[in-house]
Amino acid sequence: MASVALLTIGDEILYGQILNTNVHWLSIELDKAGFSVALHLSVGDTAESITKGLDTALAQASIVLITGGLGPTKDDVTKHTLAAYFQSELAIHEQALADVTVLVTSRGRSLNELNRLQALQPVKARYIKNEVGTAPGMWFDAPGGKVVVSMPGVPFEMKRMVTNQVLPLLNQQFEKPVVLHKYACTIGCPESELAQLIEPWETALPPYLKLAYLPTYSQVKLRLTGRSADAAALEAEMNEQIAALVPIIGQYIYAFEEQPLEQALGKLLCERKLTVAAAESCTGGQVATTFTSIPGSSEYFQGGVVAYSKEVKVQVLGVKPETLAEHGVYSHQCAAEMAAGVREKLGAAIGLSTTGVAGPASDDPNVPVGNIWIGLAHEGGVDTRQLTLGKDRETNIKLTTMALLNLLRKHLVPPAV
Amino acid sequence: MASVALLTIGDEILYGQILNTNVHWLSIELDKAGFSVALHLSVGDTAESITKGLDTALAQASIVLITGGLGPTKDDVTKHTLAAYFQSELAIHEQALADVTVLVTSRGRSLNELNRLQALQPVKARYIKNEVGTAPGMWFDAPGGKVVVSMPGVPFEMKRMVTNQVLPLLNQQFEKPVVLHKYACTIGCPESELAQLIEPWETALPPYLKLAYLPTYSQVKLRLTGRSADAAALEAEMNEQIAALVPIIGQYIYAFEEQPLEQALGKLLCERKLTVAAAESCTGGQVATTFTSIPGSSEYFQGGVVAYSKEVKVQVLGVKPETLAEHGVYSHQCAAEMAAGVREKLGAAIGLSTTGVAGPASDDPNVPVGNIWIGLAHEGGVDTRQLTLGKDRETNIKLTTMALLNLLRKHLVPPAV
Repeated sequence: MASVALLTIGDEILYGQILNTNVHWLSIELDKAGFSVALHLSVGDTAESITKGLDTALAQASIVLITGGLGPTKDDVTKHTLAAYFQSELAIHEQALADVTVLVTSRGRSLNELNRLQALQPVKARYIKNEVGTAPGMWFDAPGGKVVVSMPGVPFEMKRMVTNQVLPLLNQQFEKPVVLHKYACTIGCPESELAQLIEPWETALPPYLKLAYLPTYSQVKLRLTGRSADAAALEAEMNEQIAALVPIIGQYIYAFEEQPLEQALGKLLCERKLTVAAAESCTGGQVATTFTSIPGSSEYFQGGVVAYSKEVKVQVLGVKPETLAEHGVYSHQCAAEMAAGVREKLGAAIGLSTTGVAGPASDDPNVPVGNIWIGLAHEGGVDTRQLTLGKDRETNIKLTTMALLNLLRKHLVPPAV
Repeated sequence: MASVALLTIGDEILYGQILNTNVHWLSIELDKAGFSVALHLSVGDTAESITKGLDTALAQASIVLITGGLGPTKDDVTKHTLAAYFQSELAIHEQALADVTVLVTSRGRSLNELNRLQALQPVKARYIKNEVGTAPGMWFDAPGGKVVVSMPGVPFEMKRMVTNQVLPLLNQQFEKPVVLHKYACTIGCPESELAQLIEPWETALPPYLKLAYLPTYSQVKLRLTGRSADAAALEAEMNEQIAALVPIIGQYIYAFEEQPLEQALGKLLCERKLTVAAAESCTGGQVATTFTSIPGSSEYFQGGVVAYSKEVKVQVLGVKPETLAEHGVYSHQCAAEMAAGVREKLGAAIGLSTTGVAGPASDDPNVPVGNIWIGLAHEGGVDTRQLTLGKDRETNIKLTTMALLNLLRKHLVPPAV
């Protein structure tokens, strides 16, 4: 199978100045195309580190895709290092010079010396035109049928070059198996418990199917990856394997496509023609933000009230002052009245609520940080749950939001058992 | 200078399933602490690729920080590979077992076999407690005074571990020059304009001072980094350089410490004893979420209303039906009434509002995606602004939130000129 190493060149990546989105995009595109990415490597702007990076990459992959370090400024040494690495002279490439001239003059500028130097290319390299920038790409054939391609680091220049030129060339030159991915997205079961539950299933997987656990804040996405020459048989086999998960962990599965829980819930709410509204204290708007992150959420998300102060809970949501006096804002009772209140005031089918101490400190000596109540009000009544979480504010806000969405999921799709 | 290699383990990174934000965060933190990051390396979940990655990393750096591959599931092979690499037995670590037991039971679950396996540690490794998760970190001393630290890949677990334990230990063990950072955090001026404005200042900087532009959604943090043996002289010189920025770009500077705008605003609001409330349509809760991300924000953030539907705008916020009939929900008038309404209903000194089309599609043929109105109501009246943004929903929500916070900043600190 054609394996790829991605080599990023640039001090700005190592200093953390820039988030390396290029390798992320390249990994997705290569995976879709059936290439196996074996390695990501980022090194600084020196000939020595680039050379070492090339050695490492070529030792582990058949294809090395390099981004960055092709600008005309003096900290960009990639081109000269590659010429030395492949023992190639540099010379002005006529087509490169013509292309850069057209590009620069089309932008109303005249060719300067730095532009002209961009046309200086290693004579052993195949020239790859940059359709939207001045730094061309270079394609080197390396020993053993391997390939090294150097591209600019500017994301839109690199992406255009990959899509229009580099991927088509790689597809011609390398044979690949079919690669398929299938998902079972779960919520509410920790990774370790999930793993125990499905261990017999996982152990019995054939060797060409590989399972990955992708956890984020109470959600664990299970991804099954298959590689084979026979696409139809692979697809059928993988569908069967995923279906076999349902009797084991079906109660936790919210989707068989890769998607966040809020998107799956949005679809369910649309189908049922139900609307929701949220009354948030300790989550401070995160529940609303999560619902509204999905395009089209105005179909089912009516709105919300962030009730950070007692007065807002009473005046806007209609929580009874007696309830607060007797049970406090951190209580089942308050969560229930908030959920019922927001449902009524905003005219939604379902009202959701959160109240508790997100942290890092508690303003109530009787309620430790991480003690949080969530509520769900519907036509037939109100459900509440208490959560006992940790000390970290951001984590507590995210976990509470997910617990509330899971409560909504279980309300919409009651477990069969 | 102590050089660091960052080794990320996980097929999900190579397949492009996950954007590698861990190395970005680590690079920033290590750079701030005076370490030099020499290499980023991401490899798959096999013993062979992890071993090769370790060889490469140790050949080029004194410190290797590993993230990922410590979960309890079968695809996580990091721990066993590290034990073999350092020729160490695995044994249950009593403190690790005690810590994981406390963590699991505090979450209301009982310890299962996979949890218990998390306490299995290479006997040669120093145990690093995971304060917020079940997979501990491991610290190995390698030949030549080198160090290898393995940490979980879950971002908030890894970040906590680095900040509280790993960085302090590295600071003890490795010598570094004095490194100082000074900040000027700006909002409202694009990076390229800022760069033009301060070009003469930047060009005149001495060689031991280095400027970085750190842009995120309308904010650009300018970070000046200095390295020297003489801490006091460096500090004085850097303070002078930062002070020299004020006459040039003072109107955009909101803080001289590294902090988000919402934190600087929180401080200002506390000092002035002012409270705010937010009425959000197109931002869907992001404004409230942003305010409440700051611990202690209940001091000045009264609450908010997410008014996604027309009915909520009218019934909860008191927007006049005539206003909506005449000008529509996407209008200066609606933004003004929402801001005034939330100010009054929630009893805050200042009311903020957003309304417009976040995208990706518009439900009003007369209002293109990205047309958004923001409002600020105060004792003396209401200010509104129109924004013309792009097509991306998430970006529009973030940019609108920042523009609204900047409107609040300018209201609280009117420009001198």
